Amino acid sequence: MDNTGYCSESFNSLQSGTSDEDMVEIAGATLDFSSTDDVPPLDRDYSSGGSYVAGPNGVPKLMDLLDEPVPGVGTYEDFNTIDWVREKSKDRDRHREIASKSKESTWALLKSISDAFSGWLLMLLVGLMSGALAGGIDISAHWMTDLKEGVCLNGFWFNHEHCCWNSNETTFQERDNCPQWKSWAELIVGSNDGPFAYIMNYLMYVCWALLFSFLAVSLVRAFAPYACGSGIPEIKTILSGFIIRGYLGKWTLMIKTITLVLAVSSGLSLGKEGPLVHVACCCGNILCHLFTKYRKNEAKRREVLSAAAAVGVSVAFGAPIGGVLFSLEEVSYYFPLKTLWRSFFAALVAAFTLRSINPFGNSRLVLFYVEFHSPWHLLELIPFILLGIFGGIWGAFFIRANIAWCRRRKTTRLGHYPVLEVLVVTAVTALLAFPNSYTRMSTSELISELFNDCGLLDSSQLCNYANVSVTKSSSDALPDRPAGHDVYTAMWQLSLALIFKMLITVVTFGMKVPSGLFIPSMAVGAIAGRLLGVGMEQLAYYHHDWVIFKGWCSPGADCITPGLYAMVGATACLGGVTRMTVSLVVIMFELTGGLEYIVPLMAATMTSKWVADALGREGIYEAHIRLNGYPFLESKEEFSHKTLAMDVMRPRRSDPPLSVITQDGMSVEEVESLIAETSYSGFPVVVSHESQRLVGFVQRRDLVISIENARQRQEGVVSASRIFFTEYTPPQPPNSPPPLKLRGIMDLSPFTVTDHTAMDIVVDIFRKLGLRQCLVTHNGRLLGIITKKDILKHMAQMANRDPDSILFN
Amino acid sequence: MDNTGYCSESFNSLQSGTSDEDMVEIAGATLDFSSTDDVPPLDRDYSSGGSYVAGPNGVPKLMDLLDEPVPGVGTYEDFNTIDWVREKSKDRDRHREIASKSKESTWALLKSISDAFSGWLLMLLVGLMSGALAGGIDISAHWMTDLKEGVCLNGFWFNHEHCCWNSNETTFQERDNCPQWKSWAELIVGSNDGPFAYIMNYLMYVCWALLFSFLAVSLVRAFAPYACGSGIPEIKTILSGFIIRGYLGKWTLMIKTITLVLAVSSGLSLGKEGPLVHVACCCGNILCHLFTKYRKNEAKRREVLSAAAAVGVSVAFGAPIGGVLFSLEEVSYYFPLKTLWRSFFAALVAAFTLRSINPFGNSRLVLFYVEFHSPWHLLELIPFILLGIFGGIWGAFFIRANIAWCRRRKTTRLGHYPVLEVLVVTAVTALLAFPNSYTRMSTSELISELFNDCGLLDSSQLCNYANVSVTKSSSDALPDRPAGHDVYTAMWQLSLALIFKMLITVVTFGMKVPSGLFIPSMAVGAIAGRLLGVGMEQLAYYHHDWVIFKGWCSPGADCITPGLYAMVGATACLGGVTRMTVSLVVIMFELTGGLEYIVPLMAATMTSKWVADALGREGIYEAHIRLNGYPFLESKEEFSHKTLAMDVMRPRRSDPPLSVITQDGMSVEEVESLIAETSYSGFPVVVSHESQRLVGFVQRRDLVISIENARQRQEGVVSASRIFFTEYTPPQPPNSPPPLKLRGIMDLSPFTVTDHTAMDIVVDIFRKLGLRQCLVTHNGRLLGIITKKDILKHMAQMANRDPDSILFN
Repeated sequence: MDNTGYCSESFNSLQSGTSDEDMVEIAGATLDFSSTDDVPPLDRDYSSGGSYVAGPNGVPKLMDLLDEPVPGVGTYEDFNTIDWVREKSKDRDRHREIASKSKESTWALLKSISDAFSGWLLMLLVGLMSGALAGGIDISAHWMTDLKEGVCLNGFWFNHEHCCWNSNETTFQERDNCPQWKSWAELIVGSNDGPFAYIMNYLMYVCWALLFSFLAVSLVRAFAPYACGSGIPEIKTILSGFIIRGYLGKWTLMIKTITLVLAVSSGLSLGKEGPLVHVACCCGNILCHLFTKYRKNEAKRREVLSAAAAVGVSVAFGAPIGGVLFSLEEVSYYFPLKTLWRSFFAALVAAFTLRSINPFGNSRLVLFYVEFHSPWHLLELIPFILLGIFGGIWGAFFIRANIAWCRRRKTTRLGHYPVLEVLVVTAVTALLAFPNSYTRMSTSELISELFNDCGLLDSSQLCNYANVSVTKSSSDALPDRPAGHDVYTAMWQLSLALIFKMLITVVTFGMKVPSGLFIPSMAVGAIAGRLLGVGMEQLAYYHHDWVIFKGWCSPGADCITPGLYAMVGATACLGGVTRMTVSLVVIMFELTGGLEYIVPLMAATMTSKWVADALGREGIYEAHIRLNGYPFLESKEEFSHKTLAMDVMRPRRSDPPLSVITQDGMSVEEVESLIAETSYSGFPVVVSHESQRLVGFVQRRDLVISIENARQRQEGVVSASRIFFTEYTPPQPPNSPPPLKLRGIMDLSPFTVTDHTAMDIVVDIFRKLGLRQCLVTHNGRLLGIITKKDILKHMAQMANRDPDSILFN
Repeated sequence: MDNTGYCSESFNSLQSGTSDEDMVEIAGATLDFSSTDDVPPLDRDYSSGGSYVAGPNGVPKLMDLLDEPVPGVGTYEDFNTIDWVREKSKDRDRHREIASKSKESTWALLKSISDAFSGWLLMLLVGLMSGALAGGIDISAHWMTDLKEGVCLNGFWFNHEHCCWNSNETTFQERDNCPQWKSWAELIVGSNDGPFAYIMNYLMYVCWALLFSFLAVSLVRAFAPYACGSGIPEIKTILSGFIIRGYLGKWTLMIKTITLVLAVSSGLSLGKEGPLVHVACCCGNILCHLFTKYRKNEAKRREVLSAAAAVGVSVAFGAPIGGVLFSLEEVSYYFPLKTLWRSFFAALVAAFTLRSINPFGNSRLVLFYVEFHSPWHLLELIPFILLGIFGGIWGAFFIRANIAWCRRRKTTRLGHYPVLEVLVVTAVTALLAFPNSYTRMSTSELISELFNDCGLLDSSQLCNYANVSVTKSSSDALPDRPAGHDVYTAMWQLSLALIFKMLITVVTFGMKVPSGLFIPSMAVGAIAGRLLGVGMEQLAYYHHDWVIFKGWCSPGADCITPGLYAMVGATACLGGVTRMTVSLVVIMFELTGGLEYIVPLMAATMTSKWVADALGREGIYEAHIRLNGYPFLESKEEFSHKTLAMDVMRPRRSDPPLSVITQDGMSVEEVESLIAETSYSGFPVVVSHESQRLVGFVQRRDLVISIENARQRQEGVVSASRIFFTEYTPPQPPNSPPPLKLRGIMDLSPFTVTDHTAMDIVVDIFRKLGLRQCLVTHNGRLLGIITKKDILKHMAQMANRDPDSILFN
């Protein structure tokens, strides 16, 4: 099995044979039956599949015929898909047991109550931990970003803003300049003016950037290869029921948190929003280990992870409702209503934790929170829709370019030098970014500046309007202000920044550092939107007598808000890249003040999604999932081909017949040779080879473990022993070895469909019930089997893609 | 089959034999194969199942072996459950056909594009229509409520506020008094003072109330019995896949809109919010008839209805996001992400339509929109949680009392006099409500007044605080204001109003007029909350030196907002009654200004839900669904019993064997007698009686229609003709009548489970896939069948309820 994931493919080759492998379990797909302890050893990652040894309560139903439960039965291997039905059934069994016990004693009742509330407690902890981490990341990233430009003499741990806050010598106008804050040029050459100082600052900027990014990529490489990227594609896959051990473990969390700060501070074109979702999910997964209920059940754990994804977006954008909808719409697979409510709770807790940390000193959760005050006009929908079209085209272009680049990285020698790649991209970014003030500042600051409406006291370059209208009489007052010289400069700089951001983001996303897409996408859109907004504003100023502007721009009032255009543009671009819909609008709604601006945002989102979908069906996350060959069954797209189950099932017409086990006719040796000859992950059990009437289904892993266990512990079990899956063992002839009863590990309720079932229905069943495999019958006889992988391969084939791109079961 | 629904049970007995039956189709479960036209005749309701005659495109897949499709095959009878899998499959077939045709010609491409956008167009229309209707209802109800107290001389069509707005003689202080507005006493006896005038006003108030309610109940009785109640329980059932013809038809819409205005104006303790959901769903259903895609597919139509439910809440509370979440959480059954996005669009369109109508003249969508400004203190969570407990207890009490009362109405003679009942309750309500100014005003006005924070200029009785603190020096300023005499009076009146509302709502909900629960529940909570809030405020005033109030109530500031307490109380009570969670918090969040107040609302909602759930599992809607015996499979509650499919399936051990049809062995006569002898809604088709190997499943209705059709149209089909379900008909002996080939109507992919499948898994499958029935096999042999009704009966039995309370299939 090839387990090279999205991030690790190039590290595997680098790391093979180094001591890192002991530290970080990348593959680790060995069957380790012996570790029955609940706490994984320290050098082992707490991971999504970490506790794959079910305890005594794990599989009570299956074990009824064996003396004691076989450890390992009912668990999963790495890079495999879980069986949702079995997991949920296990949880219901556990719940039933607790409920029935709770009537017996007060202690059991208390235990049952604590069990019921453990979910809420876990949510509270996830919220608190993620909120605190997000606050820490915000503060450190802010400080380190400023460190690239200078240092505070009062204490190097102050960031620029903080440093000057505490100063008495700061005026309101020049609130960014204070004697305590020294740029590197001032410290080294003693002056901040002149070309030499500029070069000095330039050099220091590039050096710091290189240092940060080198640290980031080295840490990722050495300790947690899974910490790279945004993490959302993998989290989507994990939530759909896949197991990637260590992806949400404590090493990943630690390294991702640290390297995220470094990567953001290095000035690369990436954001912290997507990785925050990964960080929150790691928190969720690690905290799950505190509660047996969640530690031992893959389905229950995924409920927590869904909530954690909501928490991540909640702290990233200060949008709890938007976060929950993001988790529902974009990330989650199984999202019952109970999870909705708990996610909401966790998202709120996290938002309030972050607010009490107050990383930006303005009691807002994000840097780019805005409140607009002037209304918009119906005709403005036209530019908004134009922005939507731009966003859609950019989204589709970005996805294609980025996937092409990532494919090149995967397949060529480029992928062998991840550290060098990061350093080169950082150097290019830093060298090109420094001369332009809009790219030199951090991307969230840029977005914040672009979103902001120009107040009277604004000192920003973008707000340098010539104050003509003030001097005129009010009756002749023009609707808007003419742009000053600085605004035109800003326009040029912004245009250059736009092109720069568009190109550099394509090569940045997918490198071996934590990198989010939200912020760069939003920046591209915000720049485009602001440019259009200022253009519209000047059009309205110079042509206020045009029919369309009459009655719209009432005299004396600002009739166009360029900040709103920036926001609409950001929404459109983010929508084009991620194909989010409701959650995107709600997140943006939570960033702005009122309901008023939902309509522009919605118009842009809809247009952008339609345009992008017309150019390419997949969003960036789905594209990356497919690039890595994860077994992800997209729930949004309808399966629209008219094939039947018999077209998809194995064995094909030309293949040898299905490998089955008979319920009473096979010996241990025969079964073992069947296992050795085939690589199927499970076998149907039939009444007899002749009738092919289905009895049940047994997992390969369970079979292997049980036979191994029986050979070791059960006396007299030898190769000639017969294996029985029947309820009662018929009397054995004398002198024959004792039989092996394995009915306990057989799934008595395998899912079946008939060979005439339309594939769209089969796909629906797989999606909704979360199956791993389904048996196909014809007139009551077993005919074949369909696994999730078969379905995905079939779908790839129908879409004229390579079916072998699906790597995992 | 007993088809007495929630509302119609008492009308059926009243109406039998009257001419109303021609007008309103209540039962109408006759098989009418002849009406193949798409437009139902005028005297026939456009209804949820109105177009139960599928056209040529309806069932193309099933008909491949017959010369022409048999009209009626693949449709449903009234009061039956639809098959979600079949409906969705039908829609995918249709979609596939359009997609494949679209490559052929430009015209077909245009058609395919228009088909793709018809969903959005439909959403737009639903939003516009519902928004307009909601605006009309708001305006008329406002006017008619004021009509009970007086009339405007400038024009009788002005309401009180409007009348005095246009007047020049109104001062700000006395903005409710203007010479143009005359109370009835002024008009009749010429004065508004003295006991005689009071009695005159009292009399007119009661008379108008009686007139309105009499009109409402008479209209409901005569034209649309389905227009009564809130409609939400039935809509939940319909959305889960049940068919109630005419429930969402044009008569119901017309009558419900009119009678809703009348009922609200009559002063009964009911709200318009719930019924608005019904009204919006009627709009959705009627507009579905404009698009073939939605008219002909029950599953697609339910997607539209889910969105319409969101629209209803959006206009009822001015909360588009809350509306969508309400639909997702509370009402819908099948809610794909595409519907989420469309619902959001429709909800926004409706909200903006309503806003452009501006029914309250303040550019707000609801009367009780508030913005709070002062923050709350962490310790205030204690009273908020107390309010939650109150809400939970009240919710549980209300549900029990209301259900007990409705059961009494159903089972005793009380139910035979719906008109009298309404008149008596109206008379009691009006007589008791008039003397107390808080019950005399309309309930939404009451809520609005209770939610409002007292401003300096507020003239309301509740805001009559003694202005002590103003005269004192600012250093000694007390944190809050002492209550004036009027506040104490108001407290008494509010306490009486609380008791009155609590009792009268129990008997009002469920009467034969449109009646919503949201507003009365909120009123109860708001009164309780305001009382507690004022209490807290006075406590803080008189004991500001207590430790807990120190540091909390900074001098000079209002430290307690009684309006917030009212809002929290309203949330808690509404939560207790309906058991909404996220949607409730989001709706309330959209009513208030900021994120700030989510935590109190959430704390109250959580407490209220936990307390109410501890006292009784069901919310009011589920309780009413169960009262009426609808086949509703609750998706929120886990099935927690350890039974197996074999315990639930029919036939039971003592029963005769399952009625099956063999694929090639039976004659028309035999099948007809099987149909006549049994009442099952479908029959499994097996290879032979001996092997019991399953081939497919055929619906009773399809079988009856096909045989009838074949006898009429196909020559030579007589009672002795053999029926074949096989792919190829074997050669017939000479002189035998021509065989009847019915493979086309057979479902070749029936769902099967094994007899050992745990019932929790079976319930999960039924819920998630929306099945009607499922066949049970053992080792490949057919053993029995489980229908949705069997599952519901089993669930009722396990919960120690009467399994015969489940009435419908």
